[in-house]
Amino acid sequence: MTKPWILSPDRLFNADPSRRGVAHALYESVKDLPLVCPHGHVDPELLADPEANLGSPADLFVIPDHYVFRMLYSQGVPMEDLGVPTRDGIQVERDHRRIWQCFAENFYLFRGTPTGLWLADEMTNVFGIEEKLTGESAQRIYDDLEEKLASPEFSPRALFDRFDVEVLCTTDAATDTLVHHEALREAGWGGRVRPTFRPDAVVNLDTENWRGHVEQLAEISAIDIMDYRSFVRALEERRAFFKKMGAVATDHSAVTPHTERLSDGEAEAIFARALRGEVAEEDATRFTAHMLMELARMSSEDGMVMQLHVGSLRNHNEATYARFGLDMGADIPVATAWTRGLRALLNERGSDQRFRLIVYTLDESAYSRELAPLAGHYPALLLGAPWWFFDSPLGMRRYLDAVVETAGIYNLAGFNDDTRAFASIPARHDVWRRVTCDWLAGMVTTGVLDEEDAAEMAWEFAYGLTKRAYGLGLDREPVQKV
Amino acid sequence: MTKPWILSPDRLFNADPSRRGVAHALYESVKDLPLVCPHGHVDPELLADPEANLGSPADLFVIPDHYVFRMLYSQGVPMEDLGVPTRDGIQVERDHRRIWQCFAENFYLFRGTPTGLWLADEMTNVFGIEEKLTGESAQRIYDDLEEKLASPEFSPRALFDRFDVEVLCTTDAATDTLVHHEALREAGWGGRVRPTFRPDAVVNLDTENWRGHVEQLAEISAIDIMDYRSFVRALEERRAFFKKMGAVATDHSAVTPHTERLSDGEAEAIFARALRGEVAEEDATRFTAHMLMELARMSSEDGMVMQLHVGSLRNHNEATYARFGLDMGADIPVATAWTRGLRALLNERGSDQRFRLIVYTLDESAYSRELAPLAGHYPALLLGAPWWFFDSPLGMRRYLDAVVETAGIYNLAGFNDDTRAFASIPARHDVWRRVTCDWLAGMVTTGVLDEEDAAEMAWEFAYGLTKRAYGLGLDREPVQKV
Amino acid sequence: MTKPWILSPDRLFNADPSRRGVAHALYESVKDLPLVCPHGHVDPELLADPEANLGSPADLFVIPDHYVFRMLYSQGVPMEDLGVPTRDGIQVERDHRRIWQCFAENFYLFRGTPTGLWLADEMTNVFGIEEKLTGESAQRIYDDLEEKLASPEFSPRALFDRFDVEVLCTTDAATDTLVHHEALREAGWGGRVRPTFRPDAVVNLDTENWRGHVEQLAEISAIDIMDYRSFVRALEERRAFFKKMGAVATDHSAVTPHTERLSDGEAEAIFARALRGEVAEEDATRFTAHMLMELARMSSEDGMVMQLHVGSLRNHNEATYARFGLDMGADIPVATAWTRGLRALLNERGSDQRFRLIVYTLDESAYSRELAPLAGHYPALLLGAPWWFFDSPLGMRRYLDAVVETAGIYNLAGFNDDTRAFASIPARHDVWRRVTCDWLAGMVTTGVLDEEDAAEMAWEFAYGLTKRAYGLGLDREPVQKV
Repeated sequence: MTKPWILSPDRLFNADPSRRGVAHALYESVKDLPLVCPHGHVDPELLADPEANLGSPADLFVIPDHYVFRMLYSQGVPMEDLGVPTRDGIQVERDHRRIWQCFAENFYLFRGTPTGLWLADEMTNVFGIEEKLTGESAQRIYDDLEEKLASPEFSPRALFDRFDVEVLCTTDAATDTLVHHEALREAGWGGRVRPTFRPDAVVNLDTENWRGHVEQLAEISAIDIMDYRSFVRALEERRAFFKKMGAVATDHSAVTPHTERLSDGEAEAIFARALRGEVAEEDATRFTAHMLMELARMSSEDGMVMQLHVGSLRNHNEATYARFGLDMGADIPVATAWTRGLRALLNERGSDQRFRLIVYTLDESAYSRELAPLAGHYPALLLGAPWWFFDSPLGMRRYLDAVVETAGIYNLAGFNDDTRAFASIPARHDVWRRVTCDWLAGMVTTGVLDEEDAAEMAWEFAYGLTKRAYGLGLDREPVQKV
Repeated sequence: MTKPWILSPDRLFNADPSRRGVAHALYESVKDLPLVCPHGHVDPELLADPEANLGSPADLFVIPDHYVFRMLYSQGVPMEDLGVPTRDGIQVERDHRRIWQCFAENFYLFRGTPTGLWLADEMTNVFGIEEKLTGESAQRIYDDLEEKLASPEFSPRALFDRFDVEVLCTTDAATDTLVHHEALREAGWGGRVRPTFRPDAVVNLDTENWRGHVEQLAEISAIDIMDYRSFVRALEERRAFFKKMGAVATDHSAVTPHTERLSDGEAEAIFARALRGEVAEEDATRFTAHMLMELARMSSEDGMVMQLHVGSLRNHNEATYARFGLDMGADIPVATAWTRGLRALLNERGSDQRFRLIVYTLDESAYSRELAPLAGHYPALLLGAPWWFFDSPLGMRRYLDAVVETAGIYNLAGFNDDTRAFASIPARHDVWRRVTCDWLAGMVTTGVLDEEDAAEMAWEFAYGLTKRAYGLGLDREPVQKV
Repeated sequence: MTKPWILSPDRLFNADPSRRGVAHALYESVKDLPLVCPHGHVDPELLADPEANLGSPADLFVIPDHYVFRMLYSQGVPMEDLGVPTRDGIQVERDHRRIWQCFAENFYLFRGTPTGLWLADEMTNVFGIEEKLTGESAQRIYDDLEEKLASPEFSPRALFDRFDVEVLCTTDAATDTLVHHEALREAGWGGRVRPTFRPDAVVNLDTENWRGHVEQLAEISAIDIMDYRSFVRALEERRAFFKKMGAVATDHSAVTPHTERLSDGEAEAIFARALRGEVAEEDATRFTAHMLMELARMSSEDGMVMQLHVGSLRNHNEATYARFGLDMGADIPVATAWTRGLRALLNERGSDQRFRLIVYTLDESAYSRELAPLAGHYPALLLGAPWWFFDSPLGMRRYLDAVVETAGIYNLAGFNDDTRAFASIPARHDVWRRVTCDWLAGMVTTGVLDEEDAAEMAWEFAYGLTKRAYGLGLDREPVQKV
């Protein structure tokens, strides 16, 4: 063994001894709480199939993870060499050991990044790897991981138990059959793994092959979608099905948070043009803005929490998109105007007690300027956890620093890992728990909070806020009641 | 008594012992300086009437304070239950003990917020309350507060003396009679309580009932406002009156800092349309932009300091506005383009020695990008203190971090509390003094400043900058002369 | 002597003892590395002429330095009193001792600014001045500096050696003869002082006297510029000459990063209108956007690194511009939309292995939102060091905090001093080295990095990243190989 991983038990705690002491004590009180995962992209099949395994080390750590391969790509490693599947038929590397070697030789690129932290934590704490990943140690570690990944203790279900995941929500197209969720229900896992209704492909008229998605929607809902009205009915029908299958939330993605209620006539007319394949860019923008209003209306009626992820300009690199498709590390944020964008929706629905909206941003300048003031006023609005690039120690600190003074912590929706990398889930929650405890410890040592309040808040950050935000019940009492 | 308030004497000082030591020493040197309050919203009648009192605990802490009730509203407490008066005639809670109970039960929402800090400081240091506010302690604390509030030691004038307020400027409509300021002058309080000229209601053509405000302006100025010219004359007349009554500054609010000089003809034409009730949104925007130029011209002539508060989209929640009116916690910031917006005004007036402009922003991203570079160049421009949501420990730190390296501290306007909550004034100034001293201590312990310079800067932050910025004289010498 | 400069050997290191210890050790390992200066504005004549000297103390520290005189101007000191040369023929102060006295009396304005730090470091470490600059000490210090500046040990070439500058790149107009670089090559300094190709004056059609610059370009390139095609040929010819003279990079300045490929016909038509003096603002904007594409194409062909400095609204103060010209401290940043702006260029060229683009921003909100995600994807893109107002201790910290988690450190271009103040070069590099070491120490003490990785990263920040980014070779090995 060349060099060991160094994973300090006090990692992410400020070096000041008094603050570190408080952080440590808070962390001890929350570190073993079960994991609540209300939003993410784990494939339900992994859990539905009792025989499923996580594949090779390259399958697990490299090939499907755009956080990983985009960093290597940025330094000149072709994605083809990393085995990322193409849709244009070009051959890619199939030798997983070679992929792994390339990854290991470039692992130093992740120094100082959350991905680097998660990977070190996963390898150490999930897989018991003791030596640091380098080009030299790569194949020894591959051997070790390969053996473990093939064993039953490392099956997804075994890890799910070991991770103490209380509930995990997947993300599923409006047209999904939920067959895996069906299997999970039958296996008694229905409450532990839940679907989430994400209708982007049919709601955003500029989706590639939108017409095809709408046809699928018609088929699966058994509603003949011939106009806007029947389209809305089909969505409602699917929502009812998702809810029956355990869904507690919906999810929506958009470039801007623009919301606007169209007249029925306008909505009809745009939808009719879209069916004829004649949709203009402005039509698509306004239709999405309108559908967000409609989806909010449905949420207030069926009680599913509405999530909104806004601000990513998808597929910035057209060549990458052409070859590899969606979610390839080339989605780049843009400035996002929430105050004006959400105005219509919040005026219609923001004070409706039956409605809850959780928003996620990629524009940190909006935290203190727009989102905390909005969440600090509208009862229906909660701020989601720091998202994507900001699901990181410093990203979390900036988030807490920017939002809590204005919105307090009770207008936040806690944490979610938003990951497709199943084995990274504990590492991601651990970063959040450490950072929130350290942040609270800073508040204690500077006299802003007393230790009693801080302990309750640590519990809320780690567990309570998320459960309440997503209507997942609150089975456990807070550490101390007020 | 259940639990005590914990208000550390070292609160808001970094935990590192060496830095804390320096912070403590700096703070000792400034904590007892008199309070200079050049901008705020205290009702002058409170001080004009020697018999005035602060009302019930709910009157003091809840009913008029949008920082407080908007947080409770965000968590589902109807503003009606908090006794907030309506303008649509709907009944609201009148039992102040019930209002107080609701506030107390939800007081945990303010954990980690500046409002929470101020309230703890006020209750402890102004009112001598020793137990923490909870649902359980609520009525005992109410009893205690009620008794004290009724006693002469807690009259506004007695508190004004006890707080050692050197000068307090109120904010008054252009159409105000200043009758309370008149009474204050007669009582010998003229130099201690001063009016500020705020003509928004007549300058912004889209103000509700603008025509009515203009009629009032005509009446009080005894100038028949029949056109733009007479409108300007009426404003000038009122400014002269305010100045005679002790005003040292004017104040202006706008959504954007756009400035633009219209030709006389254009200004005339827009004003004429407005008088006929035919004003378009674009007219209103351009007229405000033009009037900011005119108001700057007046400032350079009469020497009153011009304050500009920009970036709040007022009354975001239309239902709240319809029922409760202005300033109800539903004013939400938007991104603000200062560099382009102020260009016309600063080119006309930014190097005019007779002119001073103090700007306040709600867009923190503009601190380092636009405002510090502008203030670091134009002689007439000073940056106002962190405003509203950013009048908070972390807001102040971000402000200092973002602006001082570019603008230095001598292009800042010190602190103002900008509050209508009279009893919170010392708490707010104390936060500023603590945070600036701690920030300077950080500069000392990292070798950027020596202790001698830091001591002078602490005095400037606490006292000198504000006095100079607002032309309030400089009665006291700095701690040490250079 | 009244008061000494206080320059702690541990300046800019966090006060926490454990972090400070790590920072100190890292800094010791990099503080004596040679200085690589790939972008700046030092006048090559200073080095080309072996007899050159740095002039009087006012010539060195005040008259040409817009960081210095804009701060004094902001506090009411006329630039004329500081000897800043005018272009309208107005007389300015010529007595350098009076200029110095004024500067010294106002030196307190630089408290807490990077300029204050640099000046203290320069006076102490370059010139051995031991007493702090004040009005009282001003003339004694002037005497001392004057004597030293006249001595051969303080000639630019002697200082260049003493500073251990490995390479310094100047910034030169496309029309420059490079006569001083020619002289430097003949003196054997060619590899140490290199030109940089900056064609802004001919590329931006709205440049004052654009036609004149194009005529100069025609003359020096010996290409008759009669249309767009010949214009492009002339640029290519000049690039080839610059490259032959040692240039490794080009540099481009723009208000926005908008890029767009025009058709040949459009480019031709706009250029033809410009030659006729009929260019509209929109033409100029689109032509610059197009030329950035063309210049990127040329970079990928000739291998010169392309630098892009975006976001400054130049000459905000028109009166200052009219009297004093360019670069007078009145260039003010604006919000910058990189994601959309660079999309065309990065799609055409961002994955081209022969191409490298280094971008510099004045909009810090774009660091984490746009620039780190872009650099964390596109192989051709690197982020330049914190620029101008952000070349400061806190500016650097914010930069590192905002970009490293997403882009890692290997997508950064290291440091450059970007200065025309030759004697300030070591002080500027020292701030960067101290801040990066302290930042890495924070990562070590919070368990994000181990010390071994941190040591390699410190070397990269101080030396390696810059050498590699600008293709300046890598003569020295990293401290420790992975």
